[in-house]
Amino acid sequence: MSRIAYVNGRYVSHQRASVHIEDRGYQFADGVYEVIAVINGQPMDEKPHLDRLDNSLRELQMKSAMARPPLRVVLREVIRRNRIRDGILYLQMTRGVARREHSFPTMQATTLVVTIRPATLPPPEALRAGVNVVTLPDIRWKRCDIKTIALLPNVLAKQHARETGAFEAWLVDEGGFITEGSATNAWIVTKKGVLITRHTNQSILSGVTREGILRAAAAEGIELEERSFHLKEAKGAAEAFLTSTTSFLLPVLKIDDTVIGGGKPGKITSQLFQRYVKKLRINKKKRKKQDERKAAFSTSDSV
Amino acid sequence: MSRIAYVNGRYVSHQRASVHIEDRGYQFADGVYEVIAVINGQPMDEKPHLDRLDNSLRELQMKSAMARPPLRVVLREVIRRNRIRDGILYLQMTRGVARREHSFPTMQATTLVVTIRPATLPPPEALRAGVNVVTLPDIRWKRCDIKTIALLPNVLAKQHARETGAFEAWLVDEGGFITEGSATNAWIVTKKGVLITRHTNQSILSGVTREGILRAAAAEGIELEERSFHLKEAKGAAEAFLTSTTSFLLPVLKIDDTVIGGGKPGKITSQLFQRYVKKLRINKKKRKKQDERKAAFSTSDSV
Repeated sequence: MSRIAYVNGRYVSHQRASVHIEDRGYQFADGVYEVIAVINGQPMDEKPHLDRLDNSLRELQMKSAMARPPLRVVLREVIRRNRIRDGILYLQMTRGVARREHSFPTMQATTLVVTIRPATLPPPEALRAGVNVVTLPDIRWKRCDIKTIALLPNVLAKQHARETGAFEAWLVDEGGFITEGSATNAWIVTKKGVLITRHTNQSILSGVTREGILRAAAAEGIELEERSFHLKEAKGAAEAFLTSTTSFLLPVLKIDDTVIGGGKPGKITSQLFQRYVKKLRINKKKRKKQDERKAAFSTSDSV
Repeated sequence: MSRIAYVNGRYVSHQRASVHIEDRGYQFADGVYEVIAVINGQPMDEKPHLDRLDNSLRELQMKSAMARPPLRVVLREVIRRNRIRDGILYLQMTRGVARREHSFPTMQATTLVVTIRPATLPPPEALRAGVNVVTLPDIRWKRCDIKTIALLPNVLAKQHARETGAFEAWLVDEGGFITEGSATNAWIVTKKGVLITRHTNQSILSGVTREGILRAAAAEGIELEERSFHLKEAKGAAEAFLTSTTSFLLPVLKIDDTVIGGGKPGKITSQLFQRYVKKLRINKKKRKKQDERKAAFSTSDSV
């Protein structure tokens, strides 16, 4: 079966899916995107993702390519046509095709692209293995709260991490405080067991998984502070981890050359991981039951 | 005659020219570009433009899509096929098509797109008319010396300018000093007749027209300082102007609400404009003579 992408109203072969060379996404990075996990054929946390998309569009004065109900249909149709149970949906909107000029075109026909690829739930060994991060100065623009495709600084940071054998780069602002990773949010746990992650303002993206972990922490009764934390505080932390839609939650066992928590995932990290994976498993079960009911129905139907 | 674009080895109808949805230029702004004026069918300042392109590629660890001699052939072929005498060449290279992942793909096949559109020499009335600029905080990333397609902050700044009735936005750093415009370099002339433009470092792009104007100023014996200048100094300046490949040189008659030089282009601005336009006209004449010689030759040839 060949992959199918959605591009501007059409479901096309992924291989041949294309956009015009004067699409403003291609010439100006004038666009926004979302990455949504798919569990058992269902988009996970769809509402917060689409809410954030609306927010990004509003900040850039862009119109959505379509209203939310048809957009949700398109996402489901892309999942269905690609026969994906567990995977990663990618959705991108740009300010359309226009003669190259920096200012917005008078006629804006937002381009919409949706793709999907298979992916698996975080395996339990992910918790044991953990990852290393390196730190880098945060040289990005000052509106990192908008989820735009102007990702070149993030690309360079991630590449630097990979070249130094790390999984991710954590970015450090001019005051020495960690903002976030190149594509993840950053978390630490103090020796007193307080969970800390940076407060949301224009210097970080409000991650959907970040929000989920905040809720999980509250439910587990973990003490929590949303505030800036210095690189020094991170290196002296009892635990550290990172979160994102595609990474879920990964323990951080080393920051630069400093081993964190004796090189093993900490108690609170494991607790949150278990709870988060449990949530996924619950979703899986729910869905399975729905599927069974549907299957039973369609069987009787076809009799 | 329909417009022709060059895309990855093929000359195609501009209307149908496209790139893959997973081109890294489209998903990550992972690419660089140049804009080159064409005068009498010849790329102007081609060498400094291609030198700067090489520099941008090197800074991003990208390979050029092709060596310089064939690239120069492609530029000329795009000019020829579109029958352009005076126009604007646009050339973009991105890190190719790959499965979406921030870090560089192992196999990099750089995408090359070249387009052209007609444009005219700056008419003498441009000097009389002048333009207004507004100022905005410079919120861009910290590597503005690289000419990348991650232009969203520039788009937003230019749009803000247009919405407030100005031609351009001049960007102001945290210290209150002007860096550059959203798509132009910024210049002032002090009351003592000293020409000032910001020194090149990672906070501005080294404009090719900027370099040309620096040479023109030296040739005219104008005193020159390459250094930061404060917004206050700009507002108190005797003259101000901006430069770029597409704008050439335009007098700035108002910065925010402050009228500059009594609202008329100043002496040094005019002097540099005349010299710059003269240079273009000389190129025009040279080229015309070459054309006449060629025509004479081909006439005798066909006899």
